[in-house]
Amino acid sequence: MPTEMSQNANALQIRVYYEDTDAGGIVFYANYLKFFERARTEWLRQLGINQSQMAQTEQQLFVVKQVDTEYLHPARLDDMLTIQSRITHLGGASVHFAQDAWCQDRHLCKSSIVVVCVDANTMRATKMNPHLRSILEQAQD
Amino acid sequence: MPTEMSQNANALQIRVYYEDTDAGGIVFYANYLKFFERARTEWLRQLGINQSQMAQTEQQLFVVKQVDTEYLHPARLDDMLTIQSRITHLGGASVHFAQDAWCQDRHLCKSSIVVVCVDANTMRATKMNPHLRSILEQAQD
Amino acid sequence: MPTEMSQNANALQIRVYYEDTDAGGIVFYANYLKFFERARTEWLRQLGINQSQMAQTEQQLFVVKQVDTEYLHPARLDDMLTIQSRITHLGGASVHFAQDAWCQDRHLCKSSIVVVCVDANTMRATKMNPHLRSILEQAQD
Amino acid sequence: MPTEMSQNANALQIRVYYEDTDAGGIVFYANYLKFFERARTEWLRQLGINQSQMAQTEQQLFVVKQVDTEYLHPARLDDMLTIQSRITHLGGASVHFAQDAWCQDRHLCKSSIVVVCVDANTMRATKMNPHLRSILEQAQD
Repeated sequence: MPTEMSQNANALQIRVYYEDTDAGGIVFYANYLKFFERARTEWLRQLGINQSQMAQTEQQLFVVKQVDTEYLHPARLDDMLTIQSRITHLGGASVHFAQDAWCQDRHLCKSSIVVVCVDANTMRATKMNPHLRSILEQAQD
Repeated sequence: MPTEMSQNANALQIRVYYEDTDAGGIVFYANYLKFFERARTEWLRQLGINQSQMAQTEQQLFVVKQVDTEYLHPARLDDMLTIQSRITHLGGASVHFAQDAWCQDRHLCKSSIVVVCVDANTMRATKMNPHLRSILEQAQD
Repeated sequence: MPTEMSQNANALQIRVYYEDTDAGGIVFYANYLKFFERARTEWLRQLGINQSQMAQTEQQLFVVKQVDTEYLHPARLDDMLTIQSRITHLGGASVHFAQDAWCQDRHLCKSSIVVVCVDANTMRATKMNPHLRSILEQAQD
Repeated sequence: MPTEMSQNANALQIRVYYEDTDAGGIVFYANYLKFFERARTEWLRQLGINQSQMAQTEQQLFVVKQVDTEYLHPARLDDMLTIQSRITHLGGASVHFAQDAWCQDRHLCKSSIVVVCVDANTMRATKMNPHLRSILEQAQD
């Protein structure tokens, strides 16, 4: 576990497979966004938030509004990555995450991601329901 | 254009990008199925069949039921591929395709693919509407 | 764990994320080939075979030669899949796998996959080294 | 062609296929980074820069160092996108791009991307060769 990692961040282990790499021998840059999405999803699941149920019962989806990513070191085939996730800000309809990819104590990639709660039919931003919001408040760093 | 290609097959040109390759330096084996799906879709579009309209107006989707693929030679970054597609059999609810990937006159990959028309709500096989079927009949090899 | 599953098959659990699904609401057909590759890789790793080391120390890669896949039922977002893998035949340079995807006791997808050991430089089939082959023999069903 | 588009930006047309979409019915957020990479690659190719040759003859790769992306509107299955690319800054070892995705006159996604020229063996930043740099200077907005 990386020493610089925040104590109260959530962590997910992800293995690098052939599908994740490219002919440069490293993980293709878009694929970190897959890893970050997996990590947010698993964290929400641990908190009791199931996004496919949320889509069906409340017609609410989380969609990504903004992603700022910096690539520090490449990851390679068979590497075991740790994805660290924190909530840095919570709005009425938005959640701001800081997410980082590590390989052992090597910091590979850092990202700041804004996710917005939208109505599944109109795709317009909509207030998170109070129950959802209170769960996220407690998970906030 | 490969000389062995069927005269009346449909052809789509596809460039190999980093996203398609893996750390072995070649196109990742699952990605040929993406190429074949693009080629079927573009061919259907040329025939006047738009699958997203079809999903909305007729609640019918094409889903893949079976894929048999043989990999003959690897494709590499920047290769320009030709995807050749033919209909080999037409059932009441199914379409059988033969699809091949070529790089110039090198045969990279051959595939036989069965696609089934399903009801978008139940995901069960359903008869293609007569208009759709007659278009596919005319496109058959 | 599916009741029909072979006792001595290897199993890997895989969660379905947004990245795996498509606008039809189901897992995109090519993505099962990613799941199968992950399952083969993890199984080989359990047996002590690390493919990225194998590429570097012995200049040998496994490449997929043939895949026959049948899609029985669709998987959806958040489903937890079990990928079952067995070796059905072992040649001098090839390994034949049977791989199946299950969601609880629902059989989603069955596949028969031939993998060939190639020289990393020439990409031509080459005999597996005796140590590798004896490990695979013991893992065979 | 979007009216707001820069006159001297490069443009690539990209069709949205099932592989690009997710169960939310829209293009998965990571996939815009694939589209942007395709657009940069095709633009470089038009300028006479072939990245796979560059990797082999000069042992130089372009790797992405930073990506800031804002998602404005979702793209959907069958949409035809225009990817607009401009060079906004040129350093000794880096190229800064502004890239935008449009669907007709709807601005879907805007991105600012920093690409670094690295030595293929060490993966460390290295000065672009003078020929490459002069080509990019002329292409700059």
